[in-house]
Amino acid sequence: MNFRKIEHIGIAVADLEKSNQLFKKLLGKEHFKTEIVEGEGVETSFFQVGETKVELLQATRPDSPIAKYLEKKSEGVHHIAFDVEDIRAEVARLKGEGFEILNETPKEGADNKLVVFLHPRSTNGVLVELCQEKK
Amino acid sequence: MNFRKIEHIGIAVADLEKSNQLFKKLLGKEHFKTEIVEGEGVETSFFQVGETKVELLQATRPDSPIAKYLEKKSEGVHHIAFDVEDIRAEVARLKGEGFEILNETPKEGADNKLVVFLHPRSTNGVLVELCQEKK
Repeated sequence: MNFRKIEHIGIAVADLEKSNQLFKKLLGKEHFKTEIVEGEGVETSFFQVGETKVELLQATRPDSPIAKYLEKKSEGVHHIAFDVEDIRAEVARLKGEGFEILNETPKEGADNKLVVFLHPRSTNGVLVELCQEKK
Repeated sequence: MNFRKIEHIGIAVADLEKSNQLFKKLLGKEHFKTEIVEGEGVETSFFQVGETKVELLQATRPDSPIAKYLEKKSEGVHHIAFDVEDIRAEVARLKGEGFEILNETPKEGADNKLVVFLHPRSTNGVLVELCQEKK
């Protein structure tokens, strides 16, 4: 089994505090944690729905991928993250299948994960993240 | 518990046959069914990942919501669907919270579901679907 579950859905937001309130009303529950990922220039909050997390993403600086995304597009679904057991094996498999890997070397993501992104132009317009729990 | 799990992620595609092949490579498995939803003007295919489905959506006619979406935007994540136990109770709750309901009367969706959509302008740019399994 390559992709075991949808680990999270990342949603780009302009104002994390405001969106935390909105998603609290929508999902009927509080977010269970927040985290700053310095490397990505994002502040995140997480809500649990079944086995999947909803991750809200706010930029912490103007050169953050989320800041650039909001300049070009608008608030909404930013990426879909799949849980994998062996991220390096998956990168090799997907590269062999012709997918465009944005970072072949896994990097540190939020929530104790190693992450790799696939370019949306190779995945039907969907920014796909692979993530593996760090041991 | 209001939203029990992410039932599916809907992805708008221009060519279902081509995208079925692409997602087969990505997810490492075949789609398990296809279905035409006449009311929505879509042909869909479903892949299972954990407890969630990935639903690819291709328009079957020019006035389909998916055709209009692809005209304005591009291929990519179209909506996020949450599984609810009692869709009418959820509509009442969310209306009370100020969310904009697109169809207050649940309609027939794919995969034996009753569905209601929330307008993305009230949900941070995310087209949210509620869906309840029909008895």
